[in-house]
Amino acid sequence: MKADIGVVGMAVMGQNLALNIESKGYTVAVYNRTRERTEELARGPAQGKRVVPAYSLPAFIASLSRPRKVLVMVKAGAGTDAVLAELFPLLEEGDLLMDGGNAHFADTERRLAEAERRGLRYLGVGISGGEYGALHGPAIMPGGHREGYALVEEILLRTAAQGPEGPCCTFLGPGSAGHYVKMVHNGIEYAIMQAIAECYDLMKRGLSMTPEAMAEVFSDWNQGELSGYILEITEKILRYVDRETGRPLVEFILDTAQQKGTGKWSTQAALDEGACAPTIAAAVFARIASALKEERQAAADVLPGPRAAFNGEREVVLKELFGALYLTVVSAYAQGMRQLRQASAERGYTLSLPEVARVWMDGCIIRSRLLFPIRKALAANADLPLLFMAEPFISRWTEHHEALRNVVTRAHQAGIPVPAMSSSLDFVDAYRTARLPANVLQAQRDFFGAHTYQRVDRDGTFHTEWEML
Amino acid sequence: MKADIGVVGMAVMGQNLALNIESKGYTVAVYNRTRERTEELARGPAQGKRVVPAYSLPAFIASLSRPRKVLVMVKAGAGTDAVLAELFPLLEEGDLLMDGGNAHFADTERRLAEAERRGLRYLGVGISGGEYGALHGPAIMPGGHREGYALVEEILLRTAAQGPEGPCCTFLGPGSAGHYVKMVHNGIEYAIMQAIAECYDLMKRGLSMTPEAMAEVFSDWNQGELSGYILEITEKILRYVDRETGRPLVEFILDTAQQKGTGKWSTQAALDEGACAPTIAAAVFARIASALKEERQAAADVLPGPRAAFNGEREVVLKELFGALYLTVVSAYAQGMRQLRQASAERGYTLSLPEVARVWMDGCIIRSRLLFPIRKALAANADLPLLFMAEPFISRWTEHHEALRNVVTRAHQAGIPVPAMSSSLDFVDAYRTARLPANVLQAQRDFFGAHTYQRVDRDGTFHTEWEML
Repeated sequence: MKADIGVVGMAVMGQNLALNIESKGYTVAVYNRTRERTEELARGPAQGKRVVPAYSLPAFIASLSRPRKVLVMVKAGAGTDAVLAELFPLLEEGDLLMDGGNAHFADTERRLAEAERRGLRYLGVGISGGEYGALHGPAIMPGGHREGYALVEEILLRTAAQGPEGPCCTFLGPGSAGHYVKMVHNGIEYAIMQAIAECYDLMKRGLSMTPEAMAEVFSDWNQGELSGYILEITEKILRYVDRETGRPLVEFILDTAQQKGTGKWSTQAALDEGACAPTIAAAVFARIASALKEERQAAADVLPGPRAAFNGEREVVLKELFGALYLTVVSAYAQGMRQLRQASAERGYTLSLPEVARVWMDGCIIRSRLLFPIRKALAANADLPLLFMAEPFISRWTEHHEALRNVVTRAHQAGIPVPAMSSSLDFVDAYRTARLPANVLQAQRDFFGAHTYQRVDRDGTFHTEWEML
Repeated sequence: MKADIGVVGMAVMGQNLALNIESKGYTVAVYNRTRERTEELARGPAQGKRVVPAYSLPAFIASLSRPRKVLVMVKAGAGTDAVLAELFPLLEEGDLLMDGGNAHFADTERRLAEAERRGLRYLGVGISGGEYGALHGPAIMPGGHREGYALVEEILLRTAAQGPEGPCCTFLGPGSAGHYVKMVHNGIEYAIMQAIAECYDLMKRGLSMTPEAMAEVFSDWNQGELSGYILEITEKILRYVDRETGRPLVEFILDTAQQKGTGKWSTQAALDEGACAPTIAAAVFARIASALKEERQAAADVLPGPRAAFNGEREVVLKELFGALYLTVVSAYAQGMRQLRQASAERGYTLSLPEVARVWMDGCIIRSRLLFPIRKALAANADLPLLFMAEPFISRWTEHHEALRNVVTRAHQAGIPVPAMSSSLDFVDAYRTARLPANVLQAQRDFFGAHTYQRVDRDGTFHTEWEML
């Protein structure tokens, strides 16, 4: 019997996805460049299952029912191109190729065009959920050929996390829609992670709290409106005791965060779309700064700052901290959704933002209870410019903005950096300012570059010879 | 007699550069796609001068002495490619092509390679100074073929602004070094302009000051360490009275700042280099936010905030404001210089940062008295990681950081966005923090993606199965 679908690339994500798909009743062919991994899988977790190992790409292709459906799960970039170059000549018109890696959307557009020229169907598929999600149900964000999607819709819907509002998978749109949405998902992820790291720093340095005490706070917060995966794992991380020292492991982890590039891409793409994403950008720059560990240690001895401790009662500060985190997290979603709205219009993705919110409700890293009101707000008003312009976010802003101001103030007065929180505050404050000082910028531009300006009191385009006083 | 150099593109920058070069004793051939502009120039400002108008590209090329030296001053992007495509077949081995537009550095690399294939010499030349600088002496930032530069060195050195430490022009390095430096110049420019716009907003809304009163403040500041072109024109702008209303013109200018893309490119390139440039990024996002005028007007009625007025004496606040502006402007230069250092290492530009500082001392938009200590600090220590790690900036940080904290606090408590200032504060605070909360980020990444982490107490790379408590 031929396999229903094939997976190329048996690193952990590919393995787990193959096992996940098989567990839903499908026969899955698997292939890996190095034979050993496939053998280990066949002897190990795939034993007795409808997993068909192949040890050459022709054999792999021959094992698939037609039209063939191939999911590529290899390292994004050159790795993907290498596999596609081998696969293209083996496939036939009407076959479907899917790239489930973190491809840059521009690469997806290029590969899709190449596949199209060859009469193949192509999907760029964003997959979020890490190892666990891949095995038990990730969020799946496919985009590309709609007819290609129809061939795998049933498989993908059953493989995806079964969320509170349906399977966390839907066809998002043509072209690179899927990978673009996944990229922005990761941008939001960077921002939420950074916001939580700032809470940790404020509790640690500002309030002298232990990881155990912080875990209690995160546990509380994870019961409420902000409940979500990143909060949940943060609590678990803070509770984890290092076997060797008997102390919280988190304290022994080096403070240099790495990145694989999707947050960077998300920020770069926001800039290309002219989308305002300062919180996501701040999170990326925070990771870059974190990598300068030796420089920071040297600078700590040279550049003075205030004592990093808060005045005020712990309970008061913690209550404010919740409000600050809430608004920062909503800023991240708001900026991401806004970027998607602009990219969809600009790039023809025809995205349904409520559907994006629904797909993110389970399986993925940024799943959160917040996605219920986010989805509702987006569904109620297709033209909603920014999440903060809908309930419950108007009320939450009204309720929490002073908390955000106070937390950012406490941090800045204590010398503790809070780039995600302060950029969120500046972002919303700019958005709710009818008259910004950009008139000065336009005057400056007109002064030195004759770039002209508009006036508030009449139509037209004006230039002034400013030197003639 | 053949012309010493030719300029293609007679928009205002091209015209003014041609006239500037001619004024230094050279014969300049000029060409423009539409005949009229060249005729106007010949009849007008070029009358009686050694300006040789040409009305076809072959005639233009024929009018040049060999090896030919051609400076292209047309709209960056497709415009440049179109002109180059016409010029390439007309030129001969050893001739020199220069692009003086705001080309993206990647385009410059591509064009340089194409020119090289054809046996031509090529320079990507960043030119800053606006219309006035083009005519009276801009900062000139050439990069590409060093032997090509030798052909025009004398012309460029005489055409450039004659700065306090020599002509504001030097060969910066191979490849796209010149355009890369110009791009970062513009990124710094965006950040300084935004910082000054924030001062305006804080004086206007926080202190209820009139433009005239602000002009006095900027005039004072422009006498001191921060003295520079953008401050100078800001004072003039604030003093300019609208003829029709009899009131300060700046108040009638629409608060939507436009951009031509170099600040965006600078930020995107910083991200590619892994360079921390949050203040420059914040300035770009501030322009993007400013463009959302209608949305902001709607949001102002929906999202509440505090009363936008400061407590405290005007003199106290203004003194703090100077400190805040000082550190924000230094942040902009520090981030830009750091990006150049990283890009130079990554891209083989072999930049001399003290020379970059020297070239920026006059003619260009970001010229400022600050470039004296910046140059000195960079010259004293070739490995200086960040300007803030050298005098006088260590002392200035020590002196002003509380002012910056207080200004950002006042702004945030008053609901006035200050993205350039607050991102600068967070930037330096992160840089001087030996232990950042990025350990939490790495733990989260290891939790959901098995990305591993390092420890502070021993060598190696570790992964934890976090779920197994």
